[in-house]
Formats: sequence, C-alpha cells, structure tokens
Amino acid sequence: MSLIVMKFGGSSVANTEKIFNAARIAAKAYDEGNEVVMVVSAQGDTTDDLIEMAGKIDDNPSKREMDMLLTTGEQISCSLMAMALHKLGYKSISMTGWQAGFLTDSHYSSARIRRIDTERIRTELDEKNIVVVAGFQGINRSDDLTTLGRGGSDTSAVALAAALNADMCRIYTDVEGVFTADPRKVKGAVKLDEISFDEMLELASLGAQVLQNRSVELAKKYNVNIEVRSSLTDNPGTVVREVTKMEGMLIKGVTKDTAIVSMSILGVPDEPGIAFAIFSRLAKCGINVDIILQSEGNDGTQDITFTIPKSDLAQAQQVLADGKDAIKSKEIKLYDNVAKVSIVGAGMASNSGVASRIFGALFEAGVNIMMISTSEIKISVLINANDADRAVAAIHDEFIK
Amino acid sequence: MSLIVMKFGGSSVANTEKIFNAARIAAKAYDEGNEVVMVVSAQGDTTDDLIEMAGKIDDNPSKREMDMLLTTGEQISCSLMAMALHKLGYKSISMTGWQAGFLTDSHYSSARIRRIDTERIRTELDEKNIVVVAGFQGINRSDDLTTLGRGGSDTSAVALAAALNADMCRIYTDVEGVFTADPRKVKGAVKLDEISFDEMLELASLGAQVLQNRSVELAKKYNVNIEVRSSLTDNPGTVVREVTKMEGMLIKGVTKDTAIVSMSILGVPDEPGIAFAIFSRLAKCGINVDIILQSEGNDGTQDITFTIPKSDLAQAQQVLADGKDAIKSKEIKLYDNVAKVSIVGAGMASNSGVASRIFGALFEAGVNIMMISTSEIKISVLINANDADRAVAAIHDEFIK
Repeated sequence: MSLIVMKFGGSSVANTEKIFNAARIAAKAYDEGNEVVMVVSAQGDTTDDLIEMAGKIDDNPSKREMDMLLTTGEQISCSLMAMALHKLGYKSISMTGWQAGFLTDSHYSSARIRRIDTERIRTELDEKNIVVVAGFQGINRSDDLTTLGRGGSDTSAVALAAALNADMCRIYTDVEGVFTADPRKVKGAVKLDEISFDEMLELASLGAQVLQNRSVELAKKYNVNIEVRSSLTDNPGTVVREVTKMEGMLIKGVTKDTAIVSMSILGVPDEPGIAFAIFSRLAKCGINVDIILQSEGNDGTQDITFTIPKSDLAQAQQVLADGKDAIKSKEIKLYDNVAKVSIVGAGMASNSGVASRIFGALFEAGVNIMMISTSEIKISVLINANDADRAVAAIHDEFIK
Repeated sequence: MSLIVMKFGGSSVANTEKIFNAARIAAKAYDEGNEVVMVVSAQGDTTDDLIEMAGKIDDNPSKREMDMLLTTGEQISCSLMAMALHKLGYKSISMTGWQAGFLTDSHYSSARIRRIDTERIRTELDEKNIVVVAGFQGINRSDDLTTLGRGGSDTSAVALAAALNADMCRIYTDVEGVFTADPRKVKGAVKLDEISFDEMLELASLGAQVLQNRSVELAKKYNVNIEVRSSLTDNPGTVVREVTKMEGMLIKGVTKDTAIVSMSILGVPDEPGIAFAIFSRLAKCGINVDIILQSEGNDGTQDITFTIPKSDLAQAQQVLADGKDAIKSKEIKLYDNVAKVSIVGAGMASNSGVASRIFGALFEAGVNIMMISTSEIKISVLINANDADRAVAAIHDEFIK
C-alpha cells in the first residue's frame, strides 16, 4: 500500500465535470489499494474574481484580510470534491488548510510553512477516507488565516507529501508532463520521462509554468518524488527526482520568459561600492535581479545592465530614484520588450560546444543577442521579445530535433 | 461607553456600495464612543449560489461538506467589510465564526451554539478595532465547521450580544422595523416602537421575516435587547425587549405565511395511538407541525389534518408512506395552495371579542376559513392562498385601521 498525494490545480477543478474527473482519478488510485490525499486549488478564475471584489473596495487592501478572503476559494473546491467522491460511492472528508494542520509564519499573502501536524489527516486516512485538503493556505500562531502566495497549492502538496512521508506526489495539470519546450509553440517538443530537481528548478524559474519553483525546492530538500501528470488522461507523466537515469539527451528543455524588463544604469563612476549600492537596495525590497552585465561606458564610467521581473518594475524604479545620490548614475534606461530564452540540461557548462551551437542557431535565425548568462545547468540569452518564439524553435531544433 | 452588536443581513452587504453603507453605520457608532462588533451574513444570493453548485454534484450532499461550503459566504463578506472599514480610516479585523469563538454541537446545517469564547473578540476590541464576525457559523468539538441554519446570523448576533454582555443588539435589515402588517401590501401598516419577545416570537414564526425565531428565543432567554433597524436610514426602529410599555394598541401585527402546505390523512381508525403514530414520526425528522385538526370521517373513522412547512413536504410524504402500516390511513390528501393568516397581540385569549371580529372581517371580505388555531397571544386561520393578501388587509383594517 502506497500513500499518494495528488494535487489538482484550478483548471483541473474548474467545473462540475472536471471535479468528477479529478475525483475519478483519485478513486482509481484508491481502488488500486493506495491511501490518497488530494490537494485542490480554487476553481478556475475564483481567486482572480475575489481579488477583483476586494479591489472594488480598496486598491491596497490589508494582506491579512486578503488572505481571509482568498482562502475561501480552496475551501469551496475541497468541499465540492468531497461531495463528488461521496457521489461516486467513496468515503471522503474535506479539510481547510488549518484543519489539515498547516502552520505557517505570519507573512500574509506569502506565508511559509513552519510545520504540518498530520494527526487529523492520519486519523481520516485510517478511517479509509480519501482526504481532500484545501491547498495554498494555513494558519499562523494567532490563529489567523494565511496564504502561501500564488501557485501555493503545489507547495502545499509537496510539503504534505514530505510530512506524511508519501511515496509519490502527483501534480495534475492540463499538460502531459514536462516538455523540452512549449508543445503549443514548438513542433517536435518532446515529453521528458524524468528530470532532476535542479533541472526542473531552472525550467520552473524560466517560465515553464508547470511547477511552482518553491514546491520543487521543497521537494529537493525533503527528497519528495514529484510526478507531473495530465488530469485529462492520467497517463504517466514526468517524474522529478533527485537522481535521474542516464539518458541520451543532454538538453532537458528550452523556455522563454517575457515577464521581465531590462534596466541599464548608465554612466556610473568606475569606483568600488556602486554595484553594491544598486543591488543591495533592490535585494532589500525582495526584488530578484537576474542577468547582470557590467560594461565600460564613456569617459571612464561604467554601464550596469540587469533584468528584473516586470511586476517589480515600479518598485525598482522607486528604489533607484531614492538611492540616486549613492548610485551617481547619469541616466537609467529601460527596455521592456525583451525576453529571456534559456536552454536547460545537466553538464552544460562542461560541454563547451553547447554555447557556440546556441549562438550559431540564433545567428541563422536572425536573432540578435543582447545579454548572455550561463550556469552549471543552463544558458540564457536576452533578446528582443518579438524574436522569442523563433529563438526557442531554433534552439530546440538544433538540440532536440 | 456602550458595546453594540450590529448584524447586517445578506441584502445589507450585497454589493460594494452596501458594504460601505454598513461600514459607515458601524463607524458612526464607533465615533460616538461605542465598542462595535459587526456580525455579517453572506452577500445577497451567495448562499443560494453555493447550494446550487453543490446540487450540480449531488442532489443530497453530505451536511458536513455543505457546511464546509456555505461558511465561505460569510467569510467573504466579513473580510470585505473589514477592508471597507480600513478604507474609511478605521481599525478593523474580521473573524470567522471559529476565530470568534463560536463552539457548537455537531448538527451540521442546523447546529446549536454551545458557548462562545469571547477572549479574542475582547482583545481586538481593547485594541480599538471594529470587530467583524462571520455570522451563521461555528466549529464543533472535532474542529469541523458547522452552520446554524438559514438566517442563523441573527442567532449569531444575539448569542454574541449575550456572551459579550452587550448593551444592544441591532439587527439591520431592509425595513424600518417591525410593522403591524407587511407595509408593501397593507395600506396603513404601522411601525411599532416596541414589542415583547413573546409577541415577536409569534410574528417571526408566522412569516414576518424580520427576525429569525431562534434569535428571539435566545434574546428572551438571555434578556438581550434587540433593535430592528433599516440599514438604509439608520433611524430608530423597533425595540424587542422583555417588558414593553403599556400601549393603547392591543394588536401588534397581522401576518401571512404561504410557505406551508396542509395534509389530510383520511379514514384512520378511531383508536388510541394513531395520532401519536403520525406526529411522533414527523417529530423524529424535525418536521414542525403547526395547526392540527381532528374530525369525524365516514364509517366511524377519523380525518387528521395539519400544516407543515412546504420545505418539509417531500420528507413528510416519505415518512408517512414508510409508516403506512402503523397509521392505517385510507388516503392522504394534500392542499398546497393555502396560507396561514395570523393576528398577534398580548391578552388576545382573554378578549373574547377578538376572534369574532376576525371572523366577521373575513366574512365581509368573502374569505372562507379552512382551519383555526388560537393561543395566548395569537389567532391563526388557514385559508386559500389566493385570499391571503385580502385577508391580511381586512383584519388589519378591522383592528388597526
């Protein structure tokens, strides 16, 4: 008997039909002799609708109250899921995050899980229930409701799998697994049977949109085997685990991310402490700086260019304006029509041919490279956003055929 | 400084504008130096919408899961209300039923409050917050969510007022107070300044739809002063309290209730135990039987006629079919186009003229009486539903002018 945690995202529980579909998947695993815990997200656009309701009242609502509001979304879907399981003839019980024992810190809207008291879930599993848990949420020490942030249901599922020592954590979604590129855009994109945590982390943070990054980090930390599966077919998908089998294919995927902007700080003096003045200020606000390029400007000054998430732009501009005196820049330029295209795979850094093949493929596709960044398992290039899909296809063709 | 509990029903928080309107009423009381606790219902049709969602999955869903589902409605409105108060510049915090300390028994969908731990609310009041509590809900000993049944927010408010030893419990609604008859239907209907608990109980159970009966019983038990006010005007409404001032007017109101059906069980043997066989079965299912009439049938048999709420009809029919052998009836007849019209006021039983004046008024209005029931403070007649409004007007004219 195995214990399986199954997570169903918003699109997989969006309506009655899909709820029953998910319930049947859980029931099948249960019939096969497994203990089953489902973690569900809010239905379809529910969370967005709730955010819009709050926005009509206050464009900057209290985060505590937002969490109070948003946690209702998953509470609705977990109760409906339990009803569907009952209708199919299975014992089932739904639980809110706090009933399921999710204790978090007090960072409303982006709380971190401190621990999970699984006693209640264990009891209900022993009673032969399929347990349905509301994802994305918990309570803090004051008994106030918290949420784990967007996509937090993945994190709920992986954390729960770790706490329950589950044999598998299946993340059901609307794709068949993790692909070497977006299959809707790139002909010949291939589904991966396996991928390592590190590779998945690079793919997730690069906009592959299959798994939330935090959930993969957590899975790596507690060595939870994740499988990404389609909720439409329930076919074997992609397993994410610590050590993957040796495979012929070096490259695990090609992704693009257009939710970034590039900022250039021009004409800063060539003296120590300037880069620190810039990046420490951004870090303090939790702004994630990605590719950084420092280059000689005119008159012995330096130009510093870097990318940040589009959503952090307004805050970054404010921070840099506030720090103007310390940064001593002449001008800040913004490029917002950019995309980061990345190729991910283990051993890339030790294979010097990869980079030159990328550059060759992009050159042949007529794509101009603005910046380059490399790591142990990925190479990213910053290009004009209009070229992004073409660049992904060109690189994918070069390596994966 | 007074402590005021204010309850706002679904129509009083149905949209952004109404939420702000309710928030302003609370803020005004707060500015006048009072401690304020708001109890809110789910917005507008939210509860019905949730019931419909569940109905698509299972036409007889688990009551535990229904409560899990329905409690989200009030959680949404209490968080939105706190946001609105923040926007108006007031300190406020929202609480679910369980956060507010509502501990109930385990009768899902119609739980009774066991006690309220008001510690958290007290703390937040001491912090100068306007506290917004989700009505209608609590938790049981197993930490599962429960609801108090339809209209339970009134009960939440009165129970909270009792537990907090509040000075006043204001029930905000969309009418100016308690009227001698439905002011939309009866010309000359008069708003009452005061009414006793007992009189209010009769009016509430008779479909006056102003206050839920249970909340009035609770208010009577703990001697909580209730005031029914309009959330549109915030003008003084009707105070419900133990002893009312002597008033010239004997009659407190005329009401109609069309949400009932009359059942006739025909041809049961004239022997002991038959009435018990019928009514004990109905009581076991929690079906409230109202007016009962027993009359001689043909061949020495008896006919037993009684009224029940329309919503209990299917269950009553099932129960009676199951008990067919014990009840030994020849036929069960159903009259579903009936209405109960009642006149309420203290001292009615001791005033023999009242009944005959009612019958006279109905006779002149051409209304035929099917059944009659009297108590210390009310007289009810069962009539054809088509005559209901005319009957209310005729009786109102006779007594209140």
